Amino acid sequence: MSGPLLVVSAHPGDFVWRAGGAIALAVHRGQRVVIACLSFGERGESASLWRKGCSLDEVKAVRREEGEKAAGALGAEVVFFDAGDYPLVETPELTRSLVDLYRELQPSVVLTHAPNDPYNVDHPVAGEIARRTRILAQAAGVPGPGDVIGAPPVFCFEPHQPEVCDFKPDVLLDITPVWEAKLAAMRGLGAQGHLVEYYTDLGRRRGVQAKRNSGPNLGLPVDAYAEAYQRVYPQVASELA
Amino acid sequence: MSGPLLVVSAHPGDFVWRAGGAIALAVHRGQRVVIACLSFGERGESASLWRKGCSLDEVKAVRREEGEKAAGALGAEVVFFDAGDYPLVETPELTRSLVDLYRELQPSVVLTHAPNDPYNVDHPVAGEIARRTRILAQAAGVPGPGDVIGAPPVFCFEPHQPEVCDFKPDVLLDITPVWEAKLAAMRGLGAQGHLVEYYTDLGRRRGVQAKRNSGPNLGLPVDAYAEAYQRVYPQVASELA
Amino acid sequence: MSGPLLVVSAHPGDFVWRAGGAIALAVHRGQRVVIACLSFGERGESASLWRKGCSLDEVKAVRREEGEKAAGALGAEVVFFDAGDYPLVETPELTRSLVDLYRELQPSVVLTHAPNDPYNVDHPVAGEIARRTRILAQAAGVPGPGDVIGAPPVFCFEPHQPEVCDFKPDVLLDITPVWEAKLAAMRGLGAQGHLVEYYTDLGRRRGVQAKRNSGPNLGLPVDAYAEAYQRVYPQVASELA
Amino acid sequence: MSGPLLVVSAHPGDFVWRAGGAIALAVHRGQRVVIACLSFGERGESASLWRKGCSLDEVKAVRREEGEKAAGALGAEVVFFDAGDYPLVETPELTRSLVDLYRELQPSVVLTHAPNDPYNVDHPVAGEIARRTRILAQAAGVPGPGDVIGAPPVFCFEPHQPEVCDFKPDVLLDITPVWEAKLAAMRGLGAQGHLVEYYTDLGRRRGVQAKRNSGPNLGLPVDAYAEAYQRVYPQVASELA
Amino acid sequence: MSGPLLVVSAHPGDFVWRAGGAIALAVHRGQRVVIACLSFGERGESASLWRKGCSLDEVKAVRREEGEKAAGALGAEVVFFDAGDYPLVETPELTRSLVDLYRELQPSVVLTHAPNDPYNVDHPVAGEIARRTRILAQAAGVPGPGDVIGAPPVFCFEPHQPEVCDFKPDVLLDITPVWEAKLAAMRGLGAQGHLVEYYTDLGRRRGVQAKRNSGPNLGLPVDAYAEAYQRVYPQVASELA
Amino acid sequence: MSGPLLVVSAHPGDFVWRAGGAIALAVHRGQRVVIACLSFGERGESASLWRKGCSLDEVKAVRREEGEKAAGALGAEVVFFDAGDYPLVETPELTRSLVDLYRELQPSVVLTHAPNDPYNVDHPVAGEIARRTRILAQAAGVPGPGDVIGAPPVFCFEPHQPEVCDFKPDVLLDITPVWEAKLAAMRGLGAQGHLVEYYTDLGRRRGVQAKRNSGPNLGLPVDAYAEAYQRVYPQVASELA
Repeated sequence: MSGPLLVVSAHPGDFVWRAGGAIALAVHRGQRVVIACLSFGERGESASLWRKGCSLDEVKAVRREEGEKAAGALGAEVVFFDAGDYPLVETPELTRSLVDLYRELQPSVVLTHAPNDPYNVDHPVAGEIARRTRILAQAAGVPGPGDVIGAPPVFCFEPHQPEVCDFKPDVLLDITPVWEAKLAAMRGLGAQGHLVEYYTDLGRRRGVQAKRNSGPNLGLPVDAYAEAYQRVYPQVASELA
Repeated sequence: MSGPLLVVSAHPGDFVWRAGGAIALAVHRGQRVVIACLSFGERGESASLWRKGCSLDEVKAVRREEGEKAAGALGAEVVFFDAGDYPLVETPELTRSLVDLYRELQPSVVLTHAPNDPYNVDHPVAGEIARRTRILAQAAGVPGPGDVIGAPPVFCFEPHQPEVCDFKPDVLLDITPVWEAKLAAMRGLGAQGHLVEYYTDLGRRRGVQAKRNSGPNLGLPVDAYAEAYQRVYPQVASELA
Repeated sequence: MSGPLLVVSAHPGDFVWRAGGAIALAVHRGQRVVIACLSFGERGESASLWRKGCSLDEVKAVRREEGEKAAGALGAEVVFFDAGDYPLVETPELTRSLVDLYRELQPSVVLTHAPNDPYNVDHPVAGEIARRTRILAQAAGVPGPGDVIGAPPVFCFEPHQPEVCDFKPDVLLDITPVWEAKLAAMRGLGAQGHLVEYYTDLGRRRGVQAKRNSGPNLGLPVDAYAEAYQRVYPQVASELA
Repeated sequence: MSGPLLVVSAHPGDFVWRAGGAIALAVHRGQRVVIACLSFGERGESASLWRKGCSLDEVKAVRREEGEKAAGALGAEVVFFDAGDYPLVETPELTRSLVDLYRELQPSVVLTHAPNDPYNVDHPVAGEIARRTRILAQAAGVPGPGDVIGAPPVFCFEPHQPEVCDFKPDVLLDITPVWEAKLAAMRGLGAQGHLVEYYTDLGRRRGVQAKRNSGPNLGLPVDAYAEAYQRVYPQVASELA
Repeated sequence: MSGPLLVVSAHPGDFVWRAGGAIALAVHRGQRVVIACLSFGERGESASLWRKGCSLDEVKAVRREEGEKAAGALGAEVVFFDAGDYPLVETPELTRSLVDLYRELQPSVVLTHAPNDPYNVDHPVAGEIARRTRILAQAAGVPGPGDVIGAPPVFCFEPHQPEVCDFKPDVLLDITPVWEAKLAAMRGLGAQGHLVEYYTDLGRRRGVQAKRNSGPNLGLPVDAYAEAYQRVYPQVASELA
Repeated sequence: MSGPLLVVSAHPGDFVWRAGGAIALAVHRGQRVVIACLSFGERGESASLWRKGCSLDEVKAVRREEGEKAAGALGAEVVFFDAGDYPLVETPELTRSLVDLYRELQPSVVLTHAPNDPYNVDHPVAGEIARRTRILAQAAGVPGPGDVIGAPPVFCFEPHQPEVCDFKPDVLLDITPVWEAKLAAMRGLGAQGHLVEYYTDLGRRRGVQAKRNSGPNLGLPVDAYAEAYQRVYPQVASELA
């Protein structure tokens, strides 16, 4: 269970808003974290830059920089695949690159987008790519560097409007110890600054729910923060808790 | 997290077939386990005794003895509520007794039946009672001994024909270390002896799946055994794994 | 498979509108058909009689007569349980009577209401009672005349607004050979005469769908009539077709 | 469409947190609003009063006063049924009283609890009672004052943890014009004061989503507030919008 | 809310059978209606023309003429994309053309196919394309003429066999005032004339249900006609009704 | 109903493990059976061959031989499409070839993979291709040899971990009479020999369930074997059973 955490994200913002806490927590425990950022979100999530009159290359450069800064603030590495967005498309090249990354990295846990989101064309596609390439990387007959991977669990992060995306939380992750790191990373995302308050509220709301679901005994603080995740595969456990 | 494990079971057999591994595992870790057995399964699951011509009291006595023997083999305590079966009915008295038990026991984990089973009239009712009385025991205004309880997680055990019961496993519990204890307890259930092979197969099948879901890295043995459970509430965790 | 067909219906109209074709078809094949009509539909489905100023006993008498006439037109027997309607309630007496009927009749097939209907308070309850008492009648320890029953398949009939009731047809039953008998029985239901056209349309619509689902090869006529049913248990078959 | 708005609430707090905006909005439009409050929430939602040592009667009195104050702040009438809580139980008396209320009131819209809530034993029961008695009140044969009612649409309000309750919003109601009234009513609920912030956050979150779902054209303000509702029946409309 | 109505239809027949009433209603209110017809249905829905020996071009010409006639009968404009059918495939060119149309038209409402239809390969694809390109047209970074669009609500029309397609009506649209126009448009579709009766029955059936769902108060006539739609996004409303 | 049985399988093993009983049963009845094997499973299901150092062509040759042997043991014909696996991709060429096969074969029943499988990238794709090309083969305008086909029912076979794949059995097929043939075919699959025990257990488990679902009356033996299938379309029947 000592392998790195792999995060497959459609756009630079996603890994911050949706999984910044999980990333900071892993880093805090000493785990290596690698973020596979499939596009720069250059078309779908950079409206303010386009309105300023930036060119495509300028938009990409700004978003890359923001993404690197945010990853840095969380203590993670980020790899950009520049696969294009709006729409993000599954291509043999992208598939191959991701299989290679899985094989080289041998991740022990994978985080990515959930299957449904009627507000975004790329998020479900990115999640599908992440889940499919993970299976390809398990097969001895699929070419790629290094050994086949095992069966790392996959967690899907929470969409912007969870109820309309059929998102039902399976795990509430206590991110209280690293909340300040997530907040700093969110603040570093200039292009979408108006969302910081929205996701701060969400973190607190999930924190309250974590407290309510775990009872007074667990020792969560009153002002806990949490992130919600959905599992793709059953949990394998040696104890029910 | 040091409170006892509470198992709410409709009939004496259920806690053995469906949760014997989880019980033995908890005992093995040093946790106290209390089984609330709501009926003796005297009408619905004692066909062979009725065919032998036993009276109702004789049937109950045999099933009680079997239940006690099975609990003993697993290292657990069993409390019989004698609430009647086929159909098991939610009554104010039963509700009160269970609230009292929750309050006195302060369980850290609860196991019970899943919501749907079109083959059995009592299983869904027992699960509903267990889940409702747990909520009542959380409320300061509901009378009962001792303090209100916290929010212990609830796990539903696997029905006999899971796919037809809309049962989707959330947790595969590795019960390999205590498989012999579960096997012994199953063999002690004279009234339904033909099920031992069926549940041995199931244990192995779930073991294979646990291995497949966790990858070669987790170190499950080739001949692992497992039990499947469904969560009622999201898991509260400090790490994604 | 030579046992009778048992139909458990909340009100006298239901077995005609929803299952008249299946009943006539069974009778036509020489099978005995018994309809367990749990109430007279005296409160919930007799608005025109109440508006005429009938007393409760008069309403019941009229509905009983209509029900007997309709059953007769279909070639079936009808047993009234007079358990009250709007709301129909599950009582120990009703349960006992139905278990007795199951045991005495030893039905090879059971028809009843589907689980959901947000337009009617009695239909889901009647279906639940029919499915629960069937399970009770299977258990040796539950008192009642005769032998325990086997595991007759259960088919739920189509609610008035199927899509809003989560009703998904599993079986389209070709009732073309007995359409005239169903039509005659529908016409005999004076209290709800305006529904004949509605259910004639539905029969034709389901007939068209049966034709479309089975292909030109099956030999359904162009003007086929059908009824839709939902299964509670998997079909057991010796051939896929 | 000029009849009153009927709100069926399990406890005094519910109608404020979950539907305070809809109530104030109706009052603001000149519609009469009647709240049927089935219990005082005396056992399940009055922990702080019990911890202070209040007797049952005292708890009820405090909660009644709070409920009346909150209804007053919203401009609505409140009727208490004192049917008991934790657990709230469907009885013939309660059913009769509610049918009477439906008949006398002839509501044009009904608001109540959603079908599922694994955190609360009373909310689903109250919603079920509200929906069932509405159907009874439609039937000419069910005794009660006045005429049968028509088919008022039913809206279910949002549970505390919507995703875990399978709650999917069908309607986002813009309550911006009456937000101050809802806030005042929430603040008047002394017993559960810590929830004001939680529901203020929720109101804003739903407001942001309403804005995102309706587009810039609708003219919702940036700081809109909204409440989410789920429909029981299809909307009947003369225009798609 | 004064923008045009955009209908995205896989084949010429679809917009008539499934949405003819909504189209005529909008025209009747003075709203502009544009139908984006992605193919001529030349392969999948023109069996009678192929059996007559027509060439591909002849089939297309006949279907185009029928489509134009039907659109004209409803008072709408139709744009053919000639993207091919059976199978209809999402291509970058088609995507671009549709984004352009969204941008130029600035529709206030969108109608298209529902997500599932196991009887037709093109309908779900057309719906998916319509929903995805709408999101693309919202993004400032996606090239195209004019301004980005807002968030027009999307309504999915009813498939041929709704229950088997998991179609649950969210809206019953009263099309009584324009029924004659829909009937005329249906009759103009020579290639599939046998469906007129089928869809007349459906219109009446949905009309009866609209009446039943809205109550006697709404004032729907006895012989109302309606069309059923499913929403993709929550309704944003200023009143619950 | 005298046409052949068509089985569309992603890899050579699938038709044996999942449908070997149905195939042998059809052959046993004198029906022709054709297996369309879309790939050799050369990358995704041949780990042991790759570990031995085989080349791609060698792997394909071994798997082809195994597949032919297994088909032979079952009495069926097999056609290999060599479309590649891991990932299997829907191409115009593959689509055309399958439409041709449907047209030439005129199957009366179709068997293929179920829609969901989070453990395998090819199974859902193969099932989707099989279902889509069946619809294309029904359309007169789609080119291909021979007549259009009718509407043969489609049965999806059971995935490896059914509950996690949302697989709910609609049919339990009694394969007891041909169990030895299935066992022989499974044993012939050298590359995946460790699965024989797993699928023997599954066959017995489904056999026990078939017995439990059909009751003592049907005459299934105590040691019955069965396979589970899910229907895509409603069953068209002339009798409820």
